[in-house]
Amino acid sequence: MQTKLPLESVYLEIRDSTDGWNAIRDMVVRGAPAIAIAGALSLAVEVFNLDNLSGSPSEAASFLQNKLEYLVSSRPTAVNLADAATKLKEVISKAAATTAEAKGVFQAYIEAAEGMLEDDVASNKAIGSYGASFIQNQTQKHKLSVLTHCNTGSLATAGYGTALGVIRALHSGGSLERAYCTETRPFNQGSRLTAFELVHEKIPATLIADSAVAALMKAGRVDAVVVGADRVASNGDTANKIGTYSVALCAKFHNVPFYVAAPVTSVDLALSSGQDIVIEERSPKELLNARGGLGEQVAASGISVWNPAFDVTPANLISGVITEKGVITKTSADDAFDIKAFVQKTA
Amino acid sequence: MQTKLPLESVYLEIRDSTDGWNAIRDMVVRGAPAIAIAGALSLAVEVFNLDNLSGSPSEAASFLQNKLEYLVSSRPTAVNLADAATKLKEVISKAAATTAEAKGVFQAYIEAAEGMLEDDVASNKAIGSYGASFIQNQTQKHKLSVLTHCNTGSLATAGYGTALGVIRALHSGGSLERAYCTETRPFNQGSRLTAFELVHEKIPATLIADSAVAALMKAGRVDAVVVGADRVASNGDTANKIGTYSVALCAKFHNVPFYVAAPVTSVDLALSSGQDIVIEERSPKELLNARGGLGEQVAASGISVWNPAFDVTPANLISGVITEKGVITKTSADDAFDIKAFVQKTA
Repeated sequence: MQTKLPLESVYLEIRDSTDGWNAIRDMVVRGAPAIAIAGALSLAVEVFNLDNLSGSPSEAASFLQNKLEYLVSSRPTAVNLADAATKLKEVISKAAATTAEAKGVFQAYIEAAEGMLEDDVASNKAIGSYGASFIQNQTQKHKLSVLTHCNTGSLATAGYGTALGVIRALHSGGSLERAYCTETRPFNQGSRLTAFELVHEKIPATLIADSAVAALMKAGRVDAVVVGADRVASNGDTANKIGTYSVALCAKFHNVPFYVAAPVTSVDLALSSGQDIVIEERSPKELLNARGGLGEQVAASGISVWNPAFDVTPANLISGVITEKGVITKTSADDAFDIKAFVQKTA
Repeated sequence: MQTKLPLESVYLEIRDSTDGWNAIRDMVVRGAPAIAIAGALSLAVEVFNLDNLSGSPSEAASFLQNKLEYLVSSRPTAVNLADAATKLKEVISKAAATTAEAKGVFQAYIEAAEGMLEDDVASNKAIGSYGASFIQNQTQKHKLSVLTHCNTGSLATAGYGTALGVIRALHSGGSLERAYCTETRPFNQGSRLTAFELVHEKIPATLIADSAVAALMKAGRVDAVVVGADRVASNGDTANKIGTYSVALCAKFHNVPFYVAAPVTSVDLALSSGQDIVIEERSPKELLNARGGLGEQVAASGISVWNPAFDVTPANLISGVITEKGVITKTSADDAFDIKAFVQKTA
């Protein structure tokens, strides 16, 4: 349960898709890739424990497809979850058409969900590897200090991490001077989760307030920024945790390269730009009470709150998008990303 | 006691300069002008309660001068406190030279300290009035939304406030649409103190995370930023609460005017630029525990912390410096402030 970290390490038993739905909605599990995997696996556990596997393949298929739609409704803005559901539905349809028993459909689903877990870890390792060598090449420094925002590590993905995977890869290659992580108010994913992972992995790391990013850069202590993404539009505009846009502005002003690290599944080619992304607003309680609303009261009673979950960083502030298939850079001609071409070329 | 707000309103009895020294050092009282007044008044209370007022005028003078030097040592970076001590020492020397009894020196000190309290409120009201009309003139809007950072209100000054005084003046003149205050991590002066004052004064106000400033500006919801200052260098570079620099960068990028509101005593003509300002680092505990270190644990155990108290906003990001003697603007010739000329002209 990520809401208990860093004070307690508690594992929550997920027995079925209802548990999965609740865990995603209540942010007990968070991080776009982790949500997709947790959702898919919650249904796999439910299926594995089904007493009655009788019925026709098409009955099994519609049972699974309904459950997947239900899971997607837990957090409608999470594009990875919707994508995973679409892929799993295809697996289900194919199995229903080629197998004689419900059991075969269920088995195909479980294997596909487990495969997603393995694929996600492999994809993160590729992101880490591409990112680390690209950034080292660009900065031409032997040892780098890298700033990240929010949590994109093992706790946000199936394992290893996206932006934190790049930091992990730099560290294991002996090229990391220091990782800086922001608190990431109001939910403190940085001070609770990223700091927890960095301490756990013995990576040299320093926590700063979100508001200290500009001062840290001015002091010349940041060689690159790497953040994750909830959604990348086809022009490269990136929706990510609130504060990402602010970090990107600080980076631009201080000539610090700013990278987005995310699997290709985070790209939404249907979005021409970030303008179309609707920003979810979260509970005022996250600012009024400590630990993102879970702890004691901090703020004055009666104050209004504006608490957007995400912001959109425009592509012109982004130096590159690091994916599991390579790093998307700007075409020199018009200083713009051609993300569609990259996605199609590497599909 | 500002450390108890907003949950409890507790008044701490200050009986002497030792109480004053502790209150300033422990940030029970904070805000540059409030520190100066609290220090001066703590010694006035001590003097008022002295049993033995005998001795020569020069003995009384050196007693007071030693106590003032002791008070300044509570927070050496607070320029207002040092300034106040210098002025009070002059009053003391003058009284010692013109009066025949120790009592006359003590009486002169008490009157001067009380006069500082009255002058500070009058000075803040002038800042509010100059700032409100200047900003209205510049933005040419009937109703304005103004963002502020940290706390510069009644709780940071003798009363009324500097940056918050400008917001107060806009509100009382019917020209304030909404005040936005940041949390101001890590000590939460915004969510604890500014929010408390805004709710108390029934000023329409919204609290946001420090990291949401850029998104709020992008949404077009901020017409101007007004912040306070700990120290203004003679070129206009301004040291203020950590995060001010970051807000200024966001304002610049979004073409939102950014004003510093501070009494002329905050200007340090001996500093040619902000480069010479040494930034105090504060306890890691402010980030590790809630409510700026006073509350429950939030962050992962074992993580290192960088916690600068201030940052320096370069003059090129500042649209004007609002003082009790008028607004200092840039000379059109070289887009720079001539603060020295303003200070000398208005002295």
